[in-house]
Amino acid sequence: MNERLILVTNDDGYASKGLAAAIEVARSFGRVVAVAPETTQSGMSQAITMYKPLFLRRVRQEPGVEVYAFSGTPVDCVKMAFDHLLREERVDLVVSGINHGSNSAVNVLYSGTMGAALEGSFYGCPAVGLSLDDHSEDADFEAAVLYGKRIIGDLLAHPVEMPLCLNVNIPAGRPEALHGIRLCRQNRGYWREEFFRRQDPLGREYFWLTGNFVNTEPDACDTDERALAEGWVSVVPIQADLTDYRRLEQLREVFGPNEK
Amino acid sequence: MNERLILVTNDDGYASKGLAAAIEVARSFGRVVAVAPETTQSGMSQAITMYKPLFLRRVRQEPGVEVYAFSGTPVDCVKMAFDHLLREERVDLVVSGINHGSNSAVNVLYSGTMGAALEGSFYGCPAVGLSLDDHSEDADFEAAVLYGKRIIGDLLAHPVEMPLCLNVNIPAGRPEALHGIRLCRQNRGYWREEFFRRQDPLGREYFWLTGNFVNTEPDACDTDERALAEGWVSVVPIQADLTDYRRLEQLREVFGPNEK
Repeated sequence: MNERLILVTNDDGYASKGLAAAIEVARSFGRVVAVAPETTQSGMSQAITMYKPLFLRRVRQEPGVEVYAFSGTPVDCVKMAFDHLLREERVDLVVSGINHGSNSAVNVLYSGTMGAALEGSFYGCPAVGLSLDDHSEDADFEAAVLYGKRIIGDLLAHPVEMPLCLNVNIPAGRPEALHGIRLCRQNRGYWREEFFRRQDPLGREYFWLTGNFVNTEPDACDTDERALAEGWVSVVPIQADLTDYRRLEQLREVFGPNEK
Repeated sequence: MNERLILVTNDDGYASKGLAAAIEVARSFGRVVAVAPETTQSGMSQAITMYKPLFLRRVRQEPGVEVYAFSGTPVDCVKMAFDHLLREERVDLVVSGINHGSNSAVNVLYSGTMGAALEGSFYGCPAVGLSLDDHSEDADFEAAVLYGKRIIGDLLAHPVEMPLCLNVNIPAGRPEALHGIRLCRQNRGYWREEFFRRQDPLGREYFWLTGNFVNTEPDACDTDERALAEGWVSVVPIQADLTDYRRLEQLREVFGPNEK
């Protein structure tokens, strides 16, 4: 069997500690090509760059690991990898992360890490987004690396139907403090912002986004938020069809039945 | 009954022809406040601006219509409206668009127009994203305005459960050439890119994203792509929970049952 080829990407940029951790995870399963943003792209969701040119440079090359910095978004990085750099190769897995900060609940929608993972799943191989629930500069990635390896090892050992994209969140803390893996659904809720307002040096008022997550189902037991809060690694399978099938029928009462 | 308050936003920027068309739609239902990006934000998905300050300016004020330009993404515009400008008011409806170009199928994920609409639905009122399947400079918005009014009129005339977000796409062409409204699901498929490669004036290679949509179910009759192709206005109810519930059970075979 040929060695596996794994694409690694993230949204914190090619030089982040989390990318090195993701490469460590991926390296245990095969050859790694990482294509990651030049600069931080947190909160970039599934954004693509339509109106400007993008630049690619190789920043590291050693046996089994190549790293490229790309001037676009996380999704641009995935597209660059599959549609240009690795076009002639078969990619076996996409690993996105390890994000500095969790991407549970509705954060999955704003997350560049998860935007890239979902995009990766469009190319026919499993895609796993890994996020550590710790924003601190000296965050300890050991548990995230350990569980990342365990989850990907389990995935690769079983036949799984494609497309497959997993949103994996790891609580902060030492591996021995975590209870294990829990399959969950995405917690419902939303953010409410409190714009931070100040004046710039020219006296112009500026706004800076800052807010709080509102958990609309704090008592639910089967969500990723709950799993994280209780010290479990949350695993949510996600997919790209936003259709609200339940409402499709309800709305016929508003718009009438479809005509011919 | 008090006059309704409608928030209008888009991803093409405050000066676009499509924003004027969306304001025309919204104006027939009440007072309009528009908060739209300073510059084009196409392809910005549900991105938020985390690492820089944002600037707001009022660009138009007349009875019943105020327009603000905000230096962030479409989702930033929605957050600015609900969490700052209109914090003390009750917003009855969000209209996003009218986009220059369709947002059917997987485009809903990359679209700034639909990112803003989905965000709007998190604030407890119906949100409607309107997109016209015509990218040309002199696109004719008449049919989009007409159907936008009809769809929103129907929505406001019926009690509907919240949250509600509609992805509405209007085929190019004159209103009389369209057949009517069709409730649909999101078409499956993905984009494959062909990066356009050239050299900049300094001799550095650059890449520019360009690609083609791959429709993986061209024969399906109940999708938005099919509706558009056949001259119908497609209406897809969308929601923010990406959980793939079907896979949740399947994956227990990979990861084992959830431990206590």
